[in-house]
Amino acid sequence: MSQAETVPDIATPHPFDQASPAELQAAVEIVKQRFDPELELFWYAGNVQEPPKKVMQAYLRAERAGKPVSPPPRRICILVGIVHTPRNFEVLVDLSEGAIVGFKELSRIYQPPLTMDEVDIARKVTLSSDLIKKEAERMGVPMELVFAEPWDYGRDSDEEYPRMSQIFMYMLNPETRDPESNPYSWPLDFMAVVDLEKREVVKVIHLNLGVDAVSREIQNGEYKSSKPAEPEYVHSLQSQKTRTTMKPLRVLQPEGPSFDVTGNLIEWEKWRFRVGFNWREGFVLYDATFDGREVLYRMALAEMFVPYGDPRSPLQRKSAFDFGNIGAGNAANNLGLGCDCLGVIKYLDGHLLGGDGKPKTIPNVVCIHEVDAGIQWKHTNTVTGKPVVVRRRQLQLQMIITVANYEYAFYYVFDQSGEIMFDTLATGILSTTPIDPANKDSCSYGTRVAPGVLAPYHQHIFSLRIDPCIDGDGNTVQVVDSVPMPLSKESNPYGVGYTTESYNVKESGTVNINVEKGRVFKIVNPNKINSTTLQPVGYKLVPVASQMLLSDPESWHGRRSNYCTAPIWVTKYKDDELYPAGKYTSQSIGDDGLRHYISRKDPVENDDVVVWHTFGLTHNPRPEDFPIMPAETTRVMLKPNGFFEFNPTLDVPESKQSFNQSVSYEDSKALSSKKSCCKI
Amino acid sequence: MSQAETVPDIATPHPFDQASPAELQAAVEIVKQRFDPELELFWYAGNVQEPPKKVMQAYLRAERAGKPVSPPPRRICILVGIVHTPRNFEVLVDLSEGAIVGFKELSRIYQPPLTMDEVDIARKVTLSSDLIKKEAERMGVPMELVFAEPWDYGRDSDEEYPRMSQIFMYMLNPETRDPESNPYSWPLDFMAVVDLEKREVVKVIHLNLGVDAVSREIQNGEYKSSKPAEPEYVHSLQSQKTRTTMKPLRVLQPEGPSFDVTGNLIEWEKWRFRVGFNWREGFVLYDATFDGREVLYRMALAEMFVPYGDPRSPLQRKSAFDFGNIGAGNAANNLGLGCDCLGVIKYLDGHLLGGDGKPKTIPNVVCIHEVDAGIQWKHTNTVTGKPVVVRRRQLQLQMIITVANYEYAFYYVFDQSGEIMFDTLATGILSTTPIDPANKDSCSYGTRVAPGVLAPYHQHIFSLRIDPCIDGDGNTVQVVDSVPMPLSKESNPYGVGYTTESYNVKESGTVNINVEKGRVFKIVNPNKINSTTLQPVGYKLVPVASQMLLSDPESWHGRRSNYCTAPIWVTKYKDDELYPAGKYTSQSIGDDGLRHYISRKDPVENDDVVVWHTFGLTHNPRPEDFPIMPAETTRVMLKPNGFFEFNPTLDVPESKQSFNQSVSYEDSKALSSKKSCCKI
Repeated sequence: MSQAETVPDIATPHPFDQASPAELQAAVEIVKQRFDPELELFWYAGNVQEPPKKVMQAYLRAERAGKPVSPPPRRICILVGIVHTPRNFEVLVDLSEGAIVGFKELSRIYQPPLTMDEVDIARKVTLSSDLIKKEAERMGVPMELVFAEPWDYGRDSDEEYPRMSQIFMYMLNPETRDPESNPYSWPLDFMAVVDLEKREVVKVIHLNLGVDAVSREIQNGEYKSSKPAEPEYVHSLQSQKTRTTMKPLRVLQPEGPSFDVTGNLIEWEKWRFRVGFNWREGFVLYDATFDGREVLYRMALAEMFVPYGDPRSPLQRKSAFDFGNIGAGNAANNLGLGCDCLGVIKYLDGHLLGGDGKPKTIPNVVCIHEVDAGIQWKHTNTVTGKPVVVRRRQLQLQMIITVANYEYAFYYVFDQSGEIMFDTLATGILSTTPIDPANKDSCSYGTRVAPGVLAPYHQHIFSLRIDPCIDGDGNTVQVVDSVPMPLSKESNPYGVGYTTESYNVKESGTVNINVEKGRVFKIVNPNKINSTTLQPVGYKLVPVASQMLLSDPESWHGRRSNYCTAPIWVTKYKDDELYPAGKYTSQSIGDDGLRHYISRKDPVENDDVVVWHTFGLTHNPRPEDFPIMPAETTRVMLKPNGFFEFNPTLDVPESKQSFNQSVSYEDSKALSSKKSCCKI
Repeated sequence: MSQAETVPDIATPHPFDQASPAELQAAVEIVKQRFDPELELFWYAGNVQEPPKKVMQAYLRAERAGKPVSPPPRRICILVGIVHTPRNFEVLVDLSEGAIVGFKELSRIYQPPLTMDEVDIARKVTLSSDLIKKEAERMGVPMELVFAEPWDYGRDSDEEYPRMSQIFMYMLNPETRDPESNPYSWPLDFMAVVDLEKREVVKVIHLNLGVDAVSREIQNGEYKSSKPAEPEYVHSLQSQKTRTTMKPLRVLQPEGPSFDVTGNLIEWEKWRFRVGFNWREGFVLYDATFDGREVLYRMALAEMFVPYGDPRSPLQRKSAFDFGNIGAGNAANNLGLGCDCLGVIKYLDGHLLGGDGKPKTIPNVVCIHEVDAGIQWKHTNTVTGKPVVVRRRQLQLQMIITVANYEYAFYYVFDQSGEIMFDTLATGILSTTPIDPANKDSCSYGTRVAPGVLAPYHQHIFSLRIDPCIDGDGNTVQVVDSVPMPLSKESNPYGVGYTTESYNVKESGTVNINVEKGRVFKIVNPNKINSTTLQPVGYKLVPVASQMLLSDPESWHGRRSNYCTAPIWVTKYKDDELYPAGKYTSQSIGDDGLRHYISRKDPVENDDVVVWHTFGLTHNPRPEDFPIMPAETTRVMLKPNGFFEFNPTLDVPESKQSFNQSVSYEDSKALSSKKSCCKI
């Protein structure tokens, strides 16, 4: 097969389009030529290298104005390693030139992500290891029941060490032996360490089954968990019957959706934006405008860190950067019609690079649909009695990822009012660890969620990267507090006056949330004055007020997740600065990321600013979170605040029965009790 | 007409049923007999006096167990006054006995609420006043355009003064002269004070049109506001066209709703509770159980205070206790099918007592319906690839109230997971005040929302009263913080450990929210141990972290709203202690309410506790909030926390396309583009 045959033609993509399978394949073929064909290569990832913002802004503005545009060079970044060696490479391929334009061997302190294909390798290595077979035999667990869960290894020393994975061990339900049974109900009393370079188990560690941090020797086969009250989440395996009380609720859109999707371009109710996709961040929002006015250049969840609070060795390593280590795109679900959302749904596929260097496509990684979110506004004239109600229609983009035991759903939500919300939803299964079922001592860092099963306390700490473009270039972050006016015969004689105190963030740095002062974060464009308020146009960020990192700042959790110490970070835009915990988070030492970006002390007033919001959940598990967790949600909001001259939803039609066709309870009961179908 | 004819038969109501029209009428007839028939009476309100909790708990437990019950005495509390006098009375009527069992003339420092009928009187008095006609003439405003908005007077001195109302003045759109035009776009430059005893305007006040607190003389007819960019919210009056881009989105429940309503009893998905209604709190939740286990005895929004931050005389009086002064029940909307909610809807009517002593019914004051709230839980098995998704069905009870310019919607939301949410939604129109349009000075306590129209800063501060009964009697409030473990070779050698620190609230008092410590408020039953966690069963309160009152504590705003200074209050249950700002809030002096309840320093550990949550919005208006405000929402959550042994939604069926019948974008687009109907 000649090279010409292996590289298919590539149609001209939009610069914010994800890398197509053909582009990934083309890039791989070009990279392969740089390596000795005898070498076995492992392909970690491939994604489009975004063009510089300056280039793209000119491009987007011309494009929106309907002017001719010439696409910037199309570049693909490939991460590849040589199997059985510690050597990994970051290669930049220019597809337009058909050439490598950047080639860098990674320092040994940087590791590419632990992709799904490598997780599979680690799992197979574990399950075929004699060390593991010996442990299973000790516990009397047949190997076909053993469930191995590879995690990123993390870091526990300053020294250089090989690429590794730590493997948490569980078993399938010993009664049903069903492959769909919930392994997290049956934690085993040991874990393993896999050397990913050697591709072998290099260590087995017996877990501490007590509640204190001092490890103790375990006896052979000593630990046996009892059967939990309800170990299973798969319905057919549960000991209880599935309820039949819930009647169907369907979303009907007889005239079709109100949105249009053309390639990566989505248009809905005065909003216009593009959606990209890459292995790391999953879906990314680009070039969002409302009624033709710029709001965001780019927004994406940039990282999440899940540090565990269990202090016992070896669990102090338990932590995950799910975006940097695994990749939200790599972990994205194929979303099913009628399962993950209701109504009329547009799906987008995601393209990834497999470990074997072949493109693979996950269908339906993003679903786009409308929701009715209640009431947008209402008023009843108190004199005439006339009510006017406008309902709140929103457009949701959803992506759901599975990272080992946990699931996260992420949402960009667009509102007719000019608001953009970013929602996170945490569900899935708690990562459990065994505890001696006979031990009834109070545990200070975890919750017993079943007999012999401990769910350690942990945090989920997200970083949302907001790259605004509020009504054009030159934005300023304003911190605004509401404070009582001082008592004064002149200005506040009755003591009821209150006012705002604000300052501009002048230099890259952090700002704290302040609930007591009702602190608000505005992103304004000082170059554009709102003719109604006589103040600069702006948006406000409504953050999630949440607890920051609980780990000691000098611990490895603390050193590696330097973005988790403050809720609001402001930096000056710089191409490629997308990663708050650094570009390479696997086994990272914490030498990259937000703390380092802000240390430049760049001027950020009336400039190209980026706002990063750190927020999260301190998750001290409940038994209600087991064997699967009811979703826990957070919402970050961007709200126009003096961006418009008046409410931009005034022209949304009144909510009417003729449009909505609701049904009264009494009519519905009468109707649904009729058993016979209508006759012709 | 004999008395027998005027008192109709009364069927035996449930003790938590609202007063029926017949009961209100019966009570009025009995009260009338106590007064000289020559006297003109004004009827403020009538409602059921709830039986003592001890009595009701025995009743409810017997009722739920299917045992015979004998209803406690049925008592109606009537508030009545003698017109043209300062004399007002609280009368308790026992309908079973047909007799007055309590009769009290109110002290002059206590005033009954300013009901809608009295607002109408105040409005008529204003519009027919020669003083007002003179002012309108000065401004060149025809009287038929003048719009008068009566508010509670508030308080500005320690002295006793008559029952009064302050009247804010606006006009209809002078161009269209349409009665549905938005008066808040056209504030007049004066306001009035009405003596409600004399029923006459006793004072006209010229408003300060500048931005500082020092009042200045205005010239005759000096103030004229300009036409705002979009003064109107009623669609037919807007200068822009209503959009046609939004396609219908309907909620279809072909097999009917999943809930049953029998009188005041609502049963849905393991939840069982009762709904009451009264003039003051509007809808009230009673006796909520999940799967037969007690969760709440009673919950209701107990008060809300809206203090304005404009320091200029006479606006320092501008403030409203919308529940105590007006009554949420009195202000409740008739909710329309297809307007205020979607799907299959059950409505409940509300019964009130009119100023004329006749019962009046507002139809559809509460709507009950189901919503799909996204995903309840999901997991994809990483080995087999099998996903399981369960969607999140909720039951919503909605009430919407109109208090002058503003609207509030309130929601009790029940989730299959055992969660109960209380949502507030603020919408409606900003209360505006005039400002000299020529003045461009920065205003430190308000936002210009249109030329010549200022919307002053204000707060909305709610109090949610939660009367729990977590798995039976004897509840304790626990305050739980998440804190780093100290570094220690024994217990936290790696610095990653974190733990919880908690204490029980032992004595009635307040607790602060602490975001930095991830503070959680639990209500536990120390007498019941969860067999999974080995800890007491409980729920946690997830509060709204918000700014407290900004007014000076010694100001009249501060003195009268003593519940607005702390987010969490814990008291020992006492019958009739329902009102955090006191029972009578109109013109109140602040001598009643939560601050006074807690001063008893009652023991509250393993006791009959009540938890009160103060939360709110600091609302510094945006131009986007005008001429009508996109809804601003808050959510308080009660979540089971070790109440169940495992996730109570496990038996909710899997989300499937056969059940949900979603449609792909492509199919929908193809379908909706077909113009012809299907042929037979």
